[in-house]
Amino acid sequence: MMDQAYQLFEKQQEERGINLNDVKKKLLDLKIETPSWGYGDSGTRFKVFQQEGVPRDPYEKLADAAQVHKYTGAAPSVAIHIPWDRVDDYSSLKNYANDLGLTIGAVNPNLFQDDDYKYGSVTNVHSKIRKKAVGQMIECIQIMREVGSKDLSLWFADGTNYPGQGNFRLRKKWMEESLTEVYRQLDEDHRMLIEYKFFEPAFYHTDLPDWGTAFNLSMKLGPKAQVLVDTGHHPLATNIEYIVSYLLEENRLGGFHFNSRKYADDDLIVAAHNPYELFLIFHQIVEALHDETKDVVQNAQSIAYMLDQCHNLEPKIPAMIRSITNVQTLYAKALLVNRNRLHQAQQEQNVLAAEHELRRAFDVDVTPLLYAIREEKGVPVDPVNAYLNSSYPQEIVKRGKGGASW
Amino acid sequence: MMDQAYQLFEKQQEERGINLNDVKKKLLDLKIETPSWGYGDSGTRFKVFQQEGVPRDPYEKLADAAQVHKYTGAAPSVAIHIPWDRVDDYSSLKNYANDLGLTIGAVNPNLFQDDDYKYGSVTNVHSKIRKKAVGQMIECIQIMREVGSKDLSLWFADGTNYPGQGNFRLRKKWMEESLTEVYRQLDEDHRMLIEYKFFEPAFYHTDLPDWGTAFNLSMKLGPKAQVLVDTGHHPLATNIEYIVSYLLEENRLGGFHFNSRKYADDDLIVAAHNPYELFLIFHQIVEALHDETKDVVQNAQSIAYMLDQCHNLEPKIPAMIRSITNVQTLYAKALLVNRNRLHQAQQEQNVLAAEHELRRAFDVDVTPLLYAIREEKGVPVDPVNAYLNSSYPQEIVKRGKGGASW
Amino acid sequence: MMDQAYQLFEKQQEERGINLNDVKKKLLDLKIETPSWGYGDSGTRFKVFQQEGVPRDPYEKLADAAQVHKYTGAAPSVAIHIPWDRVDDYSSLKNYANDLGLTIGAVNPNLFQDDDYKYGSVTNVHSKIRKKAVGQMIECIQIMREVGSKDLSLWFADGTNYPGQGNFRLRKKWMEESLTEVYRQLDEDHRMLIEYKFFEPAFYHTDLPDWGTAFNLSMKLGPKAQVLVDTGHHPLATNIEYIVSYLLEENRLGGFHFNSRKYADDDLIVAAHNPYELFLIFHQIVEALHDETKDVVQNAQSIAYMLDQCHNLEPKIPAMIRSITNVQTLYAKALLVNRNRLHQAQQEQNVLAAEHELRRAFDVDVTPLLYAIREEKGVPVDPVNAYLNSSYPQEIVKRGKGGASW
Amino acid sequence: MMDQAYQLFEKQQEERGINLNDVKKKLLDLKIETPSWGYGDSGTRFKVFQQEGVPRDPYEKLADAAQVHKYTGAAPSVAIHIPWDRVDDYSSLKNYANDLGLTIGAVNPNLFQDDDYKYGSVTNVHSKIRKKAVGQMIECIQIMREVGSKDLSLWFADGTNYPGQGNFRLRKKWMEESLTEVYRQLDEDHRMLIEYKFFEPAFYHTDLPDWGTAFNLSMKLGPKAQVLVDTGHHPLATNIEYIVSYLLEENRLGGFHFNSRKYADDDLIVAAHNPYELFLIFHQIVEALHDETKDVVQNAQSIAYMLDQCHNLEPKIPAMIRSITNVQTLYAKALLVNRNRLHQAQQEQNVLAAEHELRRAFDVDVTPLLYAIREEKGVPVDPVNAYLNSSYPQEIVKRGKGGASW
Repeated sequence: MMDQAYQLFEKQQEERGINLNDVKKKLLDLKIETPSWGYGDSGTRFKVFQQEGVPRDPYEKLADAAQVHKYTGAAPSVAIHIPWDRVDDYSSLKNYANDLGLTIGAVNPNLFQDDDYKYGSVTNVHSKIRKKAVGQMIECIQIMREVGSKDLSLWFADGTNYPGQGNFRLRKKWMEESLTEVYRQLDEDHRMLIEYKFFEPAFYHTDLPDWGTAFNLSMKLGPKAQVLVDTGHHPLATNIEYIVSYLLEENRLGGFHFNSRKYADDDLIVAAHNPYELFLIFHQIVEALHDETKDVVQNAQSIAYMLDQCHNLEPKIPAMIRSITNVQTLYAKALLVNRNRLHQAQQEQNVLAAEHELRRAFDVDVTPLLYAIREEKGVPVDPVNAYLNSSYPQEIVKRGKGGASW
Repeated sequence: MMDQAYQLFEKQQEERGINLNDVKKKLLDLKIETPSWGYGDSGTRFKVFQQEGVPRDPYEKLADAAQVHKYTGAAPSVAIHIPWDRVDDYSSLKNYANDLGLTIGAVNPNLFQDDDYKYGSVTNVHSKIRKKAVGQMIECIQIMREVGSKDLSLWFADGTNYPGQGNFRLRKKWMEESLTEVYRQLDEDHRMLIEYKFFEPAFYHTDLPDWGTAFNLSMKLGPKAQVLVDTGHHPLATNIEYIVSYLLEENRLGGFHFNSRKYADDDLIVAAHNPYELFLIFHQIVEALHDETKDVVQNAQSIAYMLDQCHNLEPKIPAMIRSITNVQTLYAKALLVNRNRLHQAQQEQNVLAAEHELRRAFDVDVTPLLYAIREEKGVPVDPVNAYLNSSYPQEIVKRGKGGASW
Repeated sequence: MMDQAYQLFEKQQEERGINLNDVKKKLLDLKIETPSWGYGDSGTRFKVFQQEGVPRDPYEKLADAAQVHKYTGAAPSVAIHIPWDRVDDYSSLKNYANDLGLTIGAVNPNLFQDDDYKYGSVTNVHSKIRKKAVGQMIECIQIMREVGSKDLSLWFADGTNYPGQGNFRLRKKWMEESLTEVYRQLDEDHRMLIEYKFFEPAFYHTDLPDWGTAFNLSMKLGPKAQVLVDTGHHPLATNIEYIVSYLLEENRLGGFHFNSRKYADDDLIVAAHNPYELFLIFHQIVEALHDETKDVVQNAQSIAYMLDQCHNLEPKIPAMIRSITNVQTLYAKALLVNRNRLHQAQQEQNVLAAEHELRRAFDVDVTPLLYAIREEKGVPVDPVNAYLNSSYPQEIVKRGKGGASW
Repeated sequence: MMDQAYQLFEKQQEERGINLNDVKKKLLDLKIETPSWGYGDSGTRFKVFQQEGVPRDPYEKLADAAQVHKYTGAAPSVAIHIPWDRVDDYSSLKNYANDLGLTIGAVNPNLFQDDDYKYGSVTNVHSKIRKKAVGQMIECIQIMREVGSKDLSLWFADGTNYPGQGNFRLRKKWMEESLTEVYRQLDEDHRMLIEYKFFEPAFYHTDLPDWGTAFNLSMKLGPKAQVLVDTGHHPLATNIEYIVSYLLEENRLGGFHFNSRKYADDDLIVAAHNPYELFLIFHQIVEALHDETKDVVQNAQSIAYMLDQCHNLEPKIPAMIRSITNVQTLYAKALLVNRNRLHQAQQEQNVLAAEHELRRAFDVDVTPLLYAIREEKGVPVDPVNAYLNSSYPQEIVKRGKGGASW
């Protein structure tokens, strides 16, 4: 029945004026990085429910990540976090990853769990602690060189809980000074991704609360600095796709942390609560990929897509796979927008027709297309179930409970 | 190609274990009421852009509503608003509606535009004004008798803008007293729908700010009083489908005002900003329709589905049609959930499988199904375009600008 | 200078028509319960920073709580949490408390950290787990009898993370069944406090998300069941004082969990981010204390005031004291509203005058009044500094790090 | 009693280490501009309740504004809006203002009510309409020259209601092009204030939704372009004082539109719903006024303070006066922070002490200080009541209903 479905799909999309070759090419090219920490135990402040079989060290995390790539063909790199993933020999870690068909992706310094960072890292009132944080970031750059990574990915938990606790403008200066020092250490082909977050774990102010602060910082630092958009880090109702589009126009969109939320930074399976939002984000990216301006196209082509989610209830590996297939689904739908007709309607200020053009694409069932892509890649058409039916879920049970955690 | 698409659709759904006959029957039964005011000019506090061709009186509003029904076969009734739709002879209005193939639906007293209501209607400090408001509601009951309506639909703008402005508990008593008096006037087969709203036009407190206040009021009044859920009237991130499900379990879900919003009560075309939300609402209703408890089923079967939206930029009639087809689309998808498999997964606490069951249904393209339904009904398969290609849009232009407005 | 300040204060308030004797009496009567868990280590999902000197067992928690009472004279009872505060001999715990000048207050079953509760406690799909939760609540009632507590305080983390994960209406029935069973076990003079929360740790739906669900549940259970309002558990912008007033009118306001938040359930020092909000809440309570209806007065007089906060950065004991003095400050200001003038302005719909009456009271510096009250009580006029200057902060350091935590 | 109160106040503040001369000087210097439109009728989309006595033309608006200045001595300038305040002879308008003791302040082009602007002004798809908008802004610059104004104040309602309706990046380019053209026309001593708004009247996207977009635009345009912060234009829970502080550090804080809101852009009397927020904003400004960096001080000294509020229920003039006295109150409190002690506590990471330093200042009753300031200025100590007891409120009644409206 799938063949029949695909033939019908092909006919329908051709009739809609869609170039399916281009669509398929772009879908085949889509790579999504998974985060090493996401394979370990995590949860809420109320409880981290430990699962049987979570990896106990960075090597086991890579092994699990390799499963995600095995079943999707779309997750060939893994982000690591320092100190969580500190090892003695990074070339061994790199080789281990390569043997699994993986590469090491973004390197993330974890600047919020040492007692030293209780009152801030790069915005700490003590220069000694700011220097420690700078040092930890430079360590990450060295690790990048060893593991062949190109992205230094920075998220700061820095902020305050109470009015008066911190001096906003001093902290701003300290952050700029610290990052300037780190930026200088980057290699030519390195990139610095700067993430922002509206709130949590700081509950009065956060030093980089929004895209504007991250963007302005990146402008001061230089062209290797770009903004990282975590889809769960905005005030409710924020039009994220507008921010994405804006950053593309400014050539400063570095990448994404994908996850889903309904309330705060809930870090759930991607697109589980409002799939249309991710479709609209991808629509902006697809528009940029077809732009006339070379810089915009180039920015759109070099976006780092990453998952960043925290599975408290569901098993880690299939949840990660589900997130990846959800991203594929919504990217596929965005690729089915007839942009000519859309632009025509926009030009005519025909609100109903323009909106319809997007919705029509969103409503298409892209299952046949994704099956076709997967067959072409040589991976299972239904990655989650293929994984669940494999022996791996049983094998890792012997790791027991109490694996890596945050 | 549509035939082929429908055959494939049928095969796929049968394979998924869906009883398409039941699905089609339910879809054919779906009726959505449109609001008379929605055909007139409306907008924001900054500007009401007048459109050419909006109706100038209640009769023309009905004529426009008849177009929506003509092209959808799903909008056979029209809500009216008093005093906006006051006429000398309601039986004439009723007959006019009937001749157009319509009936008059809910009757809404408009209790917020008289100068008397500046500081509140049923919660006004002056008993004279509270009595006026009660009188206006009783007038609506009389109109209901004349036009054959069964629903008195109540929304109160009452509230305050500043701390201290009003006495909360006195206002609560006054509202209960006033509504008790109105309730007594209802006929046996009448229903009183009580709407709530988080904020606007009052900006400090609203007398019925949430479902809890509307529900508690309905419990005090009696079984004819039920809660009306406007999808735009909640704090951001509120789980509306939970409220819907809760009210169904309590047999107090009276009906809906459908519209879409991203920020506040934006009153846009239904499901334009987060279609998944309406799907999830309908999923709860479908669950209730198949419940074992008679009262729950009965409540689910008697829900009053109504549009309540305000088109500032787009033409009124096709926007109304689009809202109706959007409702149909999302109801259709909700009907395609395999509830057995869902319940099984819920029972097994298999989070991934349960969530997948819903998403799978949402991802189905129901276009073939809706085309089939429409053919069965004898209406155009693409209602918006059929309307736009008719002569009606041109004909009404002669009404000029400056028609009915709020 | 304080004497002079108090004399001036007295003259000013008398001139404003305030009965200072009544104000002082009410302030002297104000008792605020502190939570045992609040003395231990706690924090965010990202990190719990351990402090030196946090208590290692329930007895040490009581000792710390006794310090708060010693310096404020306003915190004579302590809420306990089961299983965190499980001891072999509750009468010994009770006696220990009494010897410290304390009593045991509300008993809270902690129904969210056992692995069994991963998918819910009283709404769990397995009756065995629901029964376990019921058993744990009944254990708490037995503890109440042993320690002389009158309040069973219930908060449920129950909810789901994904659409489809749970069956809303079944869960509602299960919760009602479970609570009915618990309710039956209450003694005549027991009270059941039912707390609600908008979200967290569940991120799709929560079984008791708002006051309406808690209130309706309390109505089904009976008069001993009342609603507990945690000031951090609402959607942003919710008018909490309206809910408070509404529950007082319905005689179902059981008590408060006080804390402050700017974003989500941040659990910070009370009133640290918007002190006016707590003032407005107390204004509604003061109105109820002076009501003509006996039931309203009685409800207002029996409110259980409790702190519920989580200090990640600041030392626990002085933060608790600060919260208590903040509560006193805002209650004192609320007591200085000239209600006659306020009611007069409300009656005249004089918005500016009514609002001014509240703001005038809020703007009064109540330091002289609080100093006078504390002198009358025989406690230090500046409780935080008196505590900090005592030897206790140094003494507890010897407990080291790694005390009780959540 | 006020003398006694002031003496005590003086003693207390000196004891706290506050330099009252500096405080008084700064308070005497505080000027707040009122908006001409705020004297006319305005309201919500549901109803504009007309008041008796609202001004009928720009001259009467100025006369009313003069009353606000007469009673406060702090509102010497008036913002005007084009086309609402278009007159034939601007020098006559200017002279009329001067005779009343006023000057004309910011000139605001009103770019959202012409039918042409239905789908946008500077982001309109039609270059002809973008040019019209540019022309209207240049007209405003010419008016600035005639009336002696230095501030061109820009707010754009531009945005879209539906996904797909507009092309984000094209619109961004059009806005930048348009503003560049306008910027070129500014005189040396002119300033362009760029306002942003989260949403409304556009409900899907707004072209300048946040400070980041306004700031980036101002950076592209040049040093005369600065950001205007309207306190009601942010997502809920946004830390506005952080934005203010950030812009000061960047020397791009142009000014404020003050008003109060609890939910959306409610435009109510300043500080009526959360007075602490405005205190915290002023605290950042006071910090900047005492900074060591000349540019920061200069920016803080040249902030344009403006009211922007919309009184639907209360009379306009006294509401405006109330807003001004509220601003004075909160600025006065912010001036009473002991910054040395605050900085000391920040340096020591003493969270409790730092927070206390702010709260202590906020809790001071500054009534005696404000009375002293007013006496020094020669205006009534209680401006609202002095105005209400004057003959002016009666005199303007003869204007009748139906005056200027938006």
